[in-house]
Amino acid sequence: MLHAVNTAQLKDQLLDAHDRIKPYVHRTPVLQSTLLNKKVGALLFFKCENFQRMGAFKMRGAAHAMLCLSDQQKAKGVVTHSSGNMAQAVSLAAKTQGIEAHIVMPQNAPQVKKDAVKDYGGIIHISGNNISDREKMAKQLIAEKGLSFIHPSNDLEVILGQGTAAKELLEEVPDLDVLFTPVGGGGLLAGSAIAAKTLSSTCKIMAGEPQNADDAYRSLLSGKIETNEQANTIADGLRTNLGHINFPIIQALVDQIHLVSEEEIISAMRLIWERMKIIIEPSCAVPFAAVLKNKEAFENQKIGIILSGGNVDLSKLPF
Amino acid sequence: MLHAVNTAQLKDQLLDAHDRIKPYVHRTPVLQSTLLNKKVGALLFFKCENFQRMGAFKMRGAAHAMLCLSDQQKAKGVVTHSSGNMAQAVSLAAKTQGIEAHIVMPQNAPQVKKDAVKDYGGIIHISGNNISDREKMAKQLIAEKGLSFIHPSNDLEVILGQGTAAKELLEEVPDLDVLFTPVGGGGLLAGSAIAAKTLSSTCKIMAGEPQNADDAYRSLLSGKIETNEQANTIADGLRTNLGHINFPIIQALVDQIHLVSEEEIISAMRLIWERMKIIIEPSCAVPFAAVLKNKEAFENQKIGIILSGGNVDLSKLPF
Repeated sequence: MLHAVNTAQLKDQLLDAHDRIKPYVHRTPVLQSTLLNKKVGALLFFKCENFQRMGAFKMRGAAHAMLCLSDQQKAKGVVTHSSGNMAQAVSLAAKTQGIEAHIVMPQNAPQVKKDAVKDYGGIIHISGNNISDREKMAKQLIAEKGLSFIHPSNDLEVILGQGTAAKELLEEVPDLDVLFTPVGGGGLLAGSAIAAKTLSSTCKIMAGEPQNADDAYRSLLSGKIETNEQANTIADGLRTNLGHINFPIIQALVDQIHLVSEEEIISAMRLIWERMKIIIEPSCAVPFAAVLKNKEAFENQKIGIILSGGNVDLSKLPF
Repeated sequence: MLHAVNTAQLKDQLLDAHDRIKPYVHRTPVLQSTLLNKKVGALLFFKCENFQRMGAFKMRGAAHAMLCLSDQQKAKGVVTHSSGNMAQAVSLAAKTQGIEAHIVMPQNAPQVKKDAVKDYGGIIHISGNNISDREKMAKQLIAEKGLSFIHPSNDLEVILGQGTAAKELLEEVPDLDVLFTPVGGGGLLAGSAIAAKTLSSTCKIMAGEPQNADDAYRSLLSGKIETNEQANTIADGLRTNLGHINFPIIQALVDQIHLVSEEEIISAMRLIWERMKIIIEPSCAVPFAAVLKNKEAFENQKIGIILSGGNVDLSKLPF
């Protein structure tokens, strides 16, 4: 499955994507913490996508995918299926661009998430709880209404949009030694890998992944897309699998994936909350957990970490 | 008790204080939130002292008070009594300046706070749990060791230090209509009032205070320092009373104090956590709660809010 990846072309596409989405997303701040630097023994640069519009980097990919639609496609509307951040991202990005957004959500999605989608103007369609129920309903809506499907991670325009966070971080800290992201569906990792490998000649790209949902780690080893039989992790954004568009990019460009335990994720999350006074979701703590776990390997290096999102249910915290 | 307040002199002292402490404190960011602006119907500018060193504005006053000591005083060391943010602020400020810090803490202070003081290099002395026990032990240490006492709020150098956060905010947003702080011991409010009334000709200065600890509100009405028989509020930083140095400044300069209920404090705190993805302590939510409660009065105005601190016990959240 190893395809040749045309990095020169991807670099141009990434720069174009960033120009396109700038008016639709926040340029999020890069924070540092003296205390966490000391704890790790390295210089950490946290790119705060938890402060992004709707609270996560997904806004970038959703906005970019919609900006790449034709006028005719925009007039008909878009659809996605998600119970998480992508549902909110597609709703808000569509609203900002005057596009109708249809969101297929499983019956058992929390009311708070349904309310958020409604707040952003998304039209909710309730499906059964299985992933196949959702896909079936999305296909039906596409057939009926001619909607364009926005995939949360396995779509080149989405991948390029997600990569713009890493581009901004590298503009502020051009001499990063390593750039870290979480890996779930693979969109953020693939996009960030394009940024790291085309905008720097030395920056490594790595990911943190939960041991309990280690499909990407195993995929890099086996050379084909692996899946999880179970994905029993608190990092709910990372339970999904890679796709045929992002996997070749990840395979060609990513240097390493580090696995972390549930305890390591919770402890890293708590450290960021307590020391940096910012709210991040469990998925977002995974790359920092990986850096903490392997700190000897990163001594005195400049490490960028994409803090992917901050949407947590405050009444269900793990501490 | 209404003394003439020499604002021209206080302005010079504030500018000097800021020059002095700059190397010892962070210039904290000013954040905005489109969603919260919409909710209030005004433009809100949050000065994030929760991102200050040791997590609260108290670092400014402690650093400034110590910088104003003579070399002889510095050589002997300092003492304060506190179970809260001031204990950490004095410890860290002293460490940064190479001064020995003695902290009197009540027996019943949480272990986590004792550990934080130790981390910052403070020498802990355990006293009885009454305020008189603490004062007695501090006086004893002063007599024995010739230490200088650093008061958390009723000390002009501390007040001027606390006022530098408002000065920085007014540098970034010079045309604020209103500046809001919480009021507990009165140091932050008095310092911010000096900034608002000497650096702007139009900016009003207001405070939020818990209904359940409304001593400052009643003090402004009666014209003398009132105390609380009980101070049963979640805003644990605001249970203290005004002092004879900060009260005349507050009396002369502050436009209004707004009272808020415990429910309003918790709900404002939750809104900031959920929408801004930053961690603030309950005391810190009080001025925002006051703005929310009286939003009709602030329509379309530019409102600065000092977010005073972010030190919360994550295992004891009110939601």
